[in-house]
Amino acid sequence: MARSNMHVILRIEIDRQQVTFGKIATVVSEAGGDMVAIDVIKEGPTITVRDLTIRVNDENNQKQIVNEIDALPGVSVKHVSDRTFLVHLGGKIEIKSKISIDNREQLSQVYTPEVARVSKAIDEDPMLAYNLTIKKNSVAVISDGTAVLGLGKIKPEAAMPVMEGKAMLFKQFANINAYPLCLDSHDTEEIIRIVKALSPTFGGINLEDIASPQCFEIEERLKKEMNIPVFHDDQHGTAIVVLAGIFNALKLTKKKLEECKVVVCGIGAAGTAITKMLLNAGARNVVGVDRNGAISKKETYENKMWNWYAENTNPFEQQGDLSTVIEDADIFIGVSSAGILKVEDVKKMAKEPIVFALANPNPEISPEDASPYVRIMATGRSDYPNQVNNVLCFPGIFSGVLDCRATSINEEMKLAAAKAIASTISDDELNEEYIIPGVFNTQVVPKIRDAVIQAAYDTGVAQKV
Amino acid sequence: MARSNMHVILRIEIDRQQVTFGKIATVVSEAGGDMVAIDVIKEGPTITVRDLTIRVNDENNQKQIVNEIDALPGVSVKHVSDRTFLVHLGGKIEIKSKISIDNREQLSQVYTPEVARVSKAIDEDPMLAYNLTIKKNSVAVISDGTAVLGLGKIKPEAAMPVMEGKAMLFKQFANINAYPLCLDSHDTEEIIRIVKALSPTFGGINLEDIASPQCFEIEERLKKEMNIPVFHDDQHGTAIVVLAGIFNALKLTKKKLEECKVVVCGIGAAGTAITKMLLNAGARNVVGVDRNGAISKKETYENKMWNWYAENTNPFEQQGDLSTVIEDADIFIGVSSAGILKVEDVKKMAKEPIVFALANPNPEISPEDASPYVRIMATGRSDYPNQVNNVLCFPGIFSGVLDCRATSINEEMKLAAAKAIASTISDDELNEEYIIPGVFNTQVVPKIRDAVIQAAYDTGVAQKV
Repeated sequence: MARSNMHVILRIEIDRQQVTFGKIATVVSEAGGDMVAIDVIKEGPTITVRDLTIRVNDENNQKQIVNEIDALPGVSVKHVSDRTFLVHLGGKIEIKSKISIDNREQLSQVYTPEVARVSKAIDEDPMLAYNLTIKKNSVAVISDGTAVLGLGKIKPEAAMPVMEGKAMLFKQFANINAYPLCLDSHDTEEIIRIVKALSPTFGGINLEDIASPQCFEIEERLKKEMNIPVFHDDQHGTAIVVLAGIFNALKLTKKKLEECKVVVCGIGAAGTAITKMLLNAGARNVVGVDRNGAISKKETYENKMWNWYAENTNPFEQQGDLSTVIEDADIFIGVSSAGILKVEDVKKMAKEPIVFALANPNPEISPEDASPYVRIMATGRSDYPNQVNNVLCFPGIFSGVLDCRATSINEEMKLAAAKAIASTISDDELNEEYIIPGVFNTQVVPKIRDAVIQAAYDTGVAQKV
Repeated sequence: MARSNMHVILRIEIDRQQVTFGKIATVVSEAGGDMVAIDVIKEGPTITVRDLTIRVNDENNQKQIVNEIDALPGVSVKHVSDRTFLVHLGGKIEIKSKISIDNREQLSQVYTPEVARVSKAIDEDPMLAYNLTIKKNSVAVISDGTAVLGLGKIKPEAAMPVMEGKAMLFKQFANINAYPLCLDSHDTEEIIRIVKALSPTFGGINLEDIASPQCFEIEERLKKEMNIPVFHDDQHGTAIVVLAGIFNALKLTKKKLEECKVVVCGIGAAGTAITKMLLNAGARNVVGVDRNGAISKKETYENKMWNWYAENTNPFEQQGDLSTVIEDADIFIGVSSAGILKVEDVKKMAKEPIVFALANPNPEISPEDASPYVRIMATGRSDYPNQVNNVLCFPGIFSGVLDCRATSINEEMKLAAAKAIASTISDDELNEEYIIPGVFNTQVVPKIRDAVIQAAYDTGVAQKV
């Protein structure tokens, strides 16, 4: 387990006649905290107010430390905030003007009356919006807050910090202007209408943290009914990075995807998208498993997507639970929940098993437990090798589609993106612990961008001439 | 007429064997252009390519100059762009992250996994969105492109440059993060649903350039159905600045609004809002005039708003056209079209007439024609004294409502804003040519902000404790 990144800042009032600072520091240390900064806020003859920045292990540890300090005679905790909350104060992004408006001449150029000529030109040729407005380089990050990280369905306001974080990553990694829009609507038709109505403003739409199966219908309909690209990152971002890792893992094991048995565990948004990409990339024997066991043609399902899944996978019509269908699998890809893959299951897999255990924060099997029995392992975590992180994909893919003004993101473009990510690791570098590049690898975005643009022109969806 | 701000940049290819630069410069001057910059792009033995920046009078003048240069033997115009278009390239605003993400620790604070704690806190107490997300200081500038400047109904993409300009002004004058959203929808119910669905993301909604009478229904319904403030700037921004000017004009003429006859010409979005504010401020005799003459209880109208107007104005049930009802009016406020107020009409007004001729770009009567007969005159133009410009209002009013987390903008707050604008001109400064402050007057925003916050607390709509 890596060192905690969690910090808490306590504002405390100390009565020097009753307690020494040494006593407070001892309490912090003994409770497992690490005091990393002290700021004096107010200094009086006997009463002093200080901000203590303390590294804590987790939320429980934070509570314990706060309670123990507050219980000391002569100490009173006035306020508790932590670094993560502090970086969120007032939001994490802002709007900037590209030029300053300091006089009437500038005012009249960017606003009335001169701006009317620009509007008129776009009205006559709407493609000029790509030259003369922020549409050129902008993405809406849209969520309804129904499937946010590990939290599930939360209020749309509460999804904003995640979407703002995503907007920051768009800027940082690809210099794209992304704006977070969290919708107070859970009606599929209404969400479709809203996104369509917003499409003149943006060059692309990133759907985020929308629950399955609604996310499928929303994305499919928008793909048909809009002329800007739409990308549900939880599906395709994950799938693209997984495929990149699989390509490199197969290279190491010298196996062919066409000949592999792949078990995908958790058939929601990500599991479905991963499966579709595997099939498009040539996989023939993919078996999906969810709570009730393997998804098979022998059953019919309420969830429309599962019926599609049954029709298009599991050629040998396997039935049973994970521990049954895992037998002889070359690849396991889990996007489900903690601990459901057992050591016994891994032992049943084919030679040189590849295990992607992507449940977050706790994987389907811990790398410690799995490592004696697997050849290659990937997780969703940053504290193990081979992290599957969507940050590797969405900045590059949108960079590509915006730059060539693509009207959609098709299968060829997604496959090109996966191959581009895989290609950032050279044959010399490739090894069991390095099949997926790190998130700060600066080659990733330009490689994806170029590959996506090429695929967009090849498939006729690029509008830029 | 002020000197033109319009510049054009011509890229021309010159064959030195056929033409001298002096000849080209002469053609520009003789056509009324003013060459302000020359940039050498490519220099060859006989062929040279240069960018000429030329100040032109207007679009026709630009065309004439381009044609005359292109007609010269040995000169070929390769490309024409003008400064206004150049400042629009790629849009006028961008998103910035407040902090940089350069390592895993920062990544995990602003995004997964740490961000989940912030989302959870907001989910438990949605008011925390005002502390921990961009909602605290953000406004959506929303238009459907149906009534844009002098252009009328244009495509939503084409309205973007105006809304981006507005976003720049929000930032420049009040440090507010405004994002432009142009909707591809002209359905009143759909627009209402979209804006409501967007409300978790923003601290306030600025409706812009939406045609009358739909704008009334949209705003009224949103006021009732949302818990963040909504402000249709074309109505209330204009009304507030007009009222500010009227307050100062009345001070100069020592007249009382209660005793004045006010003729409002053009009963659309702005005319209606101005009238409502006049009535709220104490006016008793307001007569509205539109194309078919005075609006009166003796008639019934298809436009629902006009029936309201007839019920609440024109106490003496005057009928007839503008030149009839203008008789004995103390104040004329025009938000209609060029040239419809004649010198003869002004001569019929009461003593010391106040004329606000706000049609843009050409007022209801030119200041030159009116000046011998009026005491005080205001227009919508920057090249005459007393410009009624919405920029004076919206940055300050949103600054106030965001800072006190107001749930709405009520009549008391609008009146407070008008008085605050008027108060930026001291009694010593006040004169016929200075009843409205300039747009770059830095007192305006803080004065409005403070007055609006006070009025919000007084009327119980401020949520910040």
